[in-house]
Amino acid sequence: MNRRFILNILGKIMLIEAGLMLLPMLVAAIYREKHVYFAFGIPIAMLAVLGALFVSVKVYSRTIFARDGYVMVAAAWIVLSFFGALPFTFSNQIPHLVDSFFETVSGFTTTGASILTNVEALSKSMLFWRSFTHWIGGMGVLVFVMAVIPLASGSGNLQLVRAESPGPDVGKLVPKTSQSARILYAIYSGMTVIEFVLLAAGGMPVFDSICLTFGTAGTGGFGVRADSIAGYSTYIKIVITVFMLLFGVNFNLYYLLLIRRFRSAVRSTELWCYLAVIVSCTAVIALNVRSLYASFWPALEDASFQVVSIMTTTGYATADFNQWPELSKGILFLLMFVGACAGSTGGGFKLSRVMILFKSIGSELRRMLHPRSVNSVKFEGKPVDKTTLNSVYTYSAVYVLCGAVVFLVLCFEKNFDFEANFTAMVSCLNNIGPGLGAVGPASNYAAYSWVSKLVLSAAMLLGRLEIFPLLIAFSPSTWRRRLK
Amino acid sequence: MNRRFILNILGKIMLIEAGLMLLPMLVAAIYREKHVYFAFGIPIAMLAVLGALFVSVKVYSRTIFARDGYVMVAAAWIVLSFFGALPFTFSNQIPHLVDSFFETVSGFTTTGASILTNVEALSKSMLFWRSFTHWIGGMGVLVFVMAVIPLASGSGNLQLVRAESPGPDVGKLVPKTSQSARILYAIYSGMTVIEFVLLAAGGMPVFDSICLTFGTAGTGGFGVRADSIAGYSTYIKIVITVFMLLFGVNFNLYYLLLIRRFRSAVRSTELWCYLAVIVSCTAVIALNVRSLYASFWPALEDASFQVVSIMTTTGYATADFNQWPELSKGILFLLMFVGACAGSTGGGFKLSRVMILFKSIGSELRRMLHPRSVNSVKFEGKPVDKTTLNSVYTYSAVYVLCGAVVFLVLCFEKNFDFEANFTAMVSCLNNIGPGLGAVGPASNYAAYSWVSKLVLSAAMLLGRLEIFPLLIAFSPSTWRRRLK
Repeated sequence: MNRRFILNILGKIMLIEAGLMLLPMLVAAIYREKHVYFAFGIPIAMLAVLGALFVSVKVYSRTIFARDGYVMVAAAWIVLSFFGALPFTFSNQIPHLVDSFFETVSGFTTTGASILTNVEALSKSMLFWRSFTHWIGGMGVLVFVMAVIPLASGSGNLQLVRAESPGPDVGKLVPKTSQSARILYAIYSGMTVIEFVLLAAGGMPVFDSICLTFGTAGTGGFGVRADSIAGYSTYIKIVITVFMLLFGVNFNLYYLLLIRRFRSAVRSTELWCYLAVIVSCTAVIALNVRSLYASFWPALEDASFQVVSIMTTTGYATADFNQWPELSKGILFLLMFVGACAGSTGGGFKLSRVMILFKSIGSELRRMLHPRSVNSVKFEGKPVDKTTLNSVYTYSAVYVLCGAVVFLVLCFEKNFDFEANFTAMVSCLNNIGPGLGAVGPASNYAAYSWVSKLVLSAAMLLGRLEIFPLLIAFSPSTWRRRLK
Repeated sequence: MNRRFILNILGKIMLIEAGLMLLPMLVAAIYREKHVYFAFGIPIAMLAVLGALFVSVKVYSRTIFARDGYVMVAAAWIVLSFFGALPFTFSNQIPHLVDSFFETVSGFTTTGASILTNVEALSKSMLFWRSFTHWIGGMGVLVFVMAVIPLASGSGNLQLVRAESPGPDVGKLVPKTSQSARILYAIYSGMTVIEFVLLAAGGMPVFDSICLTFGTAGTGGFGVRADSIAGYSTYIKIVITVFMLLFGVNFNLYYLLLIRRFRSAVRSTELWCYLAVIVSCTAVIALNVRSLYASFWPALEDASFQVVSIMTTTGYATADFNQWPELSKGILFLLMFVGACAGSTGGGFKLSRVMILFKSIGSELRRMLHPRSVNSVKFEGKPVDKTTLNSVYTYSAVYVLCGAVVFLVLCFEKNFDFEANFTAMVSCLNNIGPGLGAVGPASNYAAYSWVSKLVLSAAMLLGRLEIFPLLIAFSPSTWRRRLK
């Protein structure tokens, strides 16, 4: 393993985080929250010193292999989350470090699961930092860094981006990875600005608009009010619904639109499947919850908001869907497993994987009926090669396995029932936020023990990095090899 | 499709069922239950007449293809369950036909899920027939028929057995399929007799011994008492635990023992994995429930019984594990997904599939680290070929998909919560019997609507026949082809 180079990049990432933390510091200055200066100041200083130290490590080779990429990504996310958690604890606004770590991991992984029993008690600068982690994590931390400075040489950049897979698929747009990262960040930033303007124009306070835009863009879900989005106007709810939907779409399609290849963009079967799922689930839920509302429109409004929020793995709520009939809860529960489009900022299992699995069932049926026929699974008009298909299968297997382990650890809890534990696992592993029952949208994760909180943090990281990078980084064989 | 031949075999199967129904008739005669004579008599007459009619259909060709095998198996199981349900309804002991159908499907598929609120109200002959369906279904209905009369010609027999896959893997033992079926049935019958003798010797009434032996042998789970096995002696509980365990082992191993290839038998990794899972889960649960018992031994006794019962998909209970701590419930819940060994009478996803999925995760990890290396998944010492691996993957996908659909339909219920619906689906799809919550071991499925009962019946059939045969039999393209 190229340890020196990994440390070097880690140092750069830490310096960048130090820089990013100046923003909430600025917010603290604007709102005259002098008591939190040191809470940001100390982590910034720590990051700056350690970062500078790591960057100064002599690098003899800038060549990295797949393994280095995975270790790099795993280390970056854990380190970023650790230092990102410090301001909450230093300011005593989230006293326990495990709680702040959970909250920060939840932020960076764009999950939006919270341990806060009263979010409104947080100071403005903390709320800002909390939501800002969503925006940073949405596109991927390394992609972010790469958009600013090129990291590795040759194919190394691509290696890193692949390891941080779930963000937009950067490799494909243009030959140079760092340039692709910049294009995607431009799209991401542009859409963020538009949403902010639309929200602020709708009468939402500027601070709320910024935070909620961050939460939407990263498909995170941290709000600034105790009732999430429920208290805002219909206009605001519709804007957020539309933008959650937009950020759940594969960003490559936006690039295709930008370079005027409209036809390629609208030919995406994943896009149409995504819209079809959302429309049909919204319709069923709206009819199912109709009796809880005075008329059909507010039912449709809440149904569409919740469907889009869960499907894109954002996790905002305008209604306590835990109180809805079992059918609506059941549909939302199943949507938790589907997730957004590949190459979007949304998490989850990803719609494209679900579609490929569906198609492979059809292919198997054909094989059983006609054993000698040649069957290939097609996706987006092209046959899916064996390696990709195999990756989808093994990802599904490891995904279920991780879910089982996380669920089992949660079962040690005394005060949570089956529904809460199972959906907490599903929600964190898919980077959504709320679950059902005791972890429903009107509740939070505060009552879990610190062990469960750490395991759920691990689940969020596993989900965000699509499991394998973390497994590889923590597998003994990765570290054993060096002894040879 | 070779419809004539399919009808012909179906006819034979119906005649056999008519013959099998003479046994409960005999029981009715022994216990002088004269009021149920007609309840068995009418279905027997119907089966005999219709069966004879179908058998008289002129068969021009005895050649069948894969598709015919699947349609055949699907038709056989549905027809058998339908006629098997009639005695319950005709005798008015289970008045509604949907209920009797559910109960009979549950019997033949060796699920053991019941809609009876008071099982002890049933007459002896009905209890016998109910348990006897487990014994018939355990090895597979077509395997049973084949052990008596050869069905198709050439490779047709194998085709049929493959379609009815989950029973013991008949094809492999000796070159002739019908002979293999007879060997396996001899083993099955022999073990059944031994268990019966051991139970009766332990002071259990002969009638109970017969019924419970049927339930154990088929890994079914229908008992004759309201409290399942809880009221019997420790000796009885241990005998049943051991035999559930034995019937959950791949029957090929017993054949290897019979022909004195001991070394091949004990080399089975699936066997060791099966025992390891049972021992470790038993240990954890015994410690977890220790405080509910006066001493460690009864805790261990109940823990081992429940673990073996769920893992082998039998579904007997000696304790209401729904009242156990979440950890024990969580472990049992996860065991529901594992299932027994391949080639046993047990249902579920099958341990061998779980093991292959695990190994393929390892293989994928190696591929990610060393993209150019050649990796193959090995099982029982041999590399798993691509087709098998692909079948395991697609089976997993279609299994999850079916589970999602069944769960969604159950969500329409007004009086069942998430835990009950989800575990009812898992329990029926894996042919176990009890779930958690409102469908726990101390409860039953009576309160579900008739739609849900039919869907759960479908789930049991899907699980027992491993999904694809039913999907193929009911897919429009299977029937469309004939028009060409």
